[in-house]
Amino acid sequence: MTTPPPARPLSATERTRHRRLREQGRADRAELDSILAAGFVCHLGVTVDGTLMVVPTVYGADDGTLYFHGSVASRSLVAAPGAAVCVTVTHIDGLVLARSVFEHGVNYRSAMIYGVPRPVTDEEEKLAGLRCLTEQSAPGQWDYARRPSRKELAATALLALPLDEASVKVRTGPPDDGDSPDAELGLWAGVLPLNASWGTLRPDPGLDPAIAPPPHLVHRAGTAAQA
Amino acid sequence: MTTPPPARPLSATERTRHRRLREQGRADRAELDSILAAGFVCHLGVTVDGTLMVVPTVYGADDGTLYFHGSVASRSLVAAPGAAVCVTVTHIDGLVLARSVFEHGVNYRSAMIYGVPRPVTDEEEKLAGLRCLTEQSAPGQWDYARRPSRKELAATALLALPLDEASVKVRTGPPDDGDSPDAELGLWAGVLPLNASWGTLRPDPGLDPAIAPPPHLVHRAGTAAQA
Repeated sequence: MTTPPPARPLSATERTRHRRLREQGRADRAELDSILAAGFVCHLGVTVDGTLMVVPTVYGADDGTLYFHGSVASRSLVAAPGAAVCVTVTHIDGLVLARSVFEHGVNYRSAMIYGVPRPVTDEEEKLAGLRCLTEQSAPGQWDYARRPSRKELAATALLALPLDEASVKVRTGPPDDGDSPDAELGLWAGVLPLNASWGTLRPDPGLDPAIAPPPHLVHRAGTAAQA
Repeated sequence: MTTPPPARPLSATERTRHRRLREQGRADRAELDSILAAGFVCHLGVTVDGTLMVVPTVYGADDGTLYFHGSVASRSLVAAPGAAVCVTVTHIDGLVLARSVFEHGVNYRSAMIYGVPRPVTDEEEKLAGLRCLTEQSAPGQWDYARRPSRKELAATALLALPLDEASVKVRTGPPDDGDSPDAELGLWAGVLPLNASWGTLRPDPGLDPAIAPPPHLVHRAGTAAQA
C-alpha cells in the first residue's frame, strides 16, 4: 500500500490473543490492512446446517469492512443471518529450510477475522461493496466492464464483515536453528522464496482480434502479484 | 502428477453434492489427488471452545490420508479429539475478465475435505506422517536434514484425516459471456493467469559460505511452484 492508514490496534479478545505462536502475533491495524490489500481470495469458515465448511471466495476490503459474496455460503448466511464466521487471508512467502526437520517451516502473512457478517441490502451500498470487491482482484475493471444491471444487483447477495476483531500472524526471515548445536552439522539452511506473478493476457477465443486489452490490464500482465 | 492413481469416485454425501456451482463440481479421485499434490498449505476449519477458526497450516497427503500438525489447533484437537473439521486446499490460477462485472470470476482448483482427524500416536506412523508432511513442501529435505529426535517426536502432535469425504471444484477457461449480448459491447475479455514460482535460494546469514545447497534445492529454485 502506498499510503498506509493510521495505526489502530487490533482488538485482543480471548480468541485473538495468540496463545500459540505468540512471537508471530502482530497487533497493528496497518499490518492487517496490508495483508488484506495484498490478496483477493479468502477462506471463509462457516457452519452450515451443523457442518463446518471452509470455502474459498473473493473479497474486497475497504475502510474497515470486508465484503464477500453471500452466494458462496447462501445456505447458511442467507438462511440464517447472524451466524458467526471466521475469514482467513493467507500469503505464503517461502519455505524455511532449517538444519533439522523439526525447525522446518513456512514464511507467511495471515489474517484471521472474526465476526457476524451483515447482508447488504441498500442498493447504493451494494454497488459500492461490489465495486470494492471487483477492484480488489481486478483494479480498473469496474470502470471498464459493464456494471451490474438492477436485475443482476438484485440477484447478488453481498455480505459485509466489520474488520473489528482480527488476529494477524507473520513469519519472516531465516531458520531459527542458526545458533543451535545443529549449526555444527554442516548442512545448508536458508529460505526458498515463493513468488506469485501475473502471466500473459489470454484473450477469449471468441473475441474480435481487433479489440485490444485496456491499458490497466496490459500494465498488470507480467508483474508481481502481491504487494 | 506424472502417474495419476486409479480413479476412485469421491463420496457424494449430503454436504458434498455441489448444490451450488454444480457445473464446477468434479467427482473423481485423481482430481482430488492432483489438487492436493500441487500444494502444501491448507486452511483448517475447526471449532475451538465454541469459536469457529480457519487456520492456515502445512499438510502432507499420501495414500488416502491427509496429515497435519495437531499443534495448529491444539486447544480443540488435542483437548477434544473427535471434533469434525473441514480442510480446504485452493489454487488460484487466474482472473476471469468478462465483458460484465457480473460475470467476472476466478479460475481455481479447490478441494474441501470433511472428517474427524485421528491423533497419530504410534511412533512409526508418526515418523511416516511427518516424512509425508515434510516432503510435501520440501521434497528431499527428509533425507537431507536432521530427522526428529525421540524428544522432538514426542513434542509433535500429528493428526491424520482420511481422504474419504471430499468436494472438488474447478473452474478453467475463458469468461462465459462470449455469446451473450454483452459480446457486442466491443470490450476486451479473457483471462489473466496467476503463476507461482520458487525464487532464488537465500542462505541463512549465519551459514558458513563453504556449505553449498544440496542439488534438490538448487534444482527447485526458479521453477514453477505448482503441478
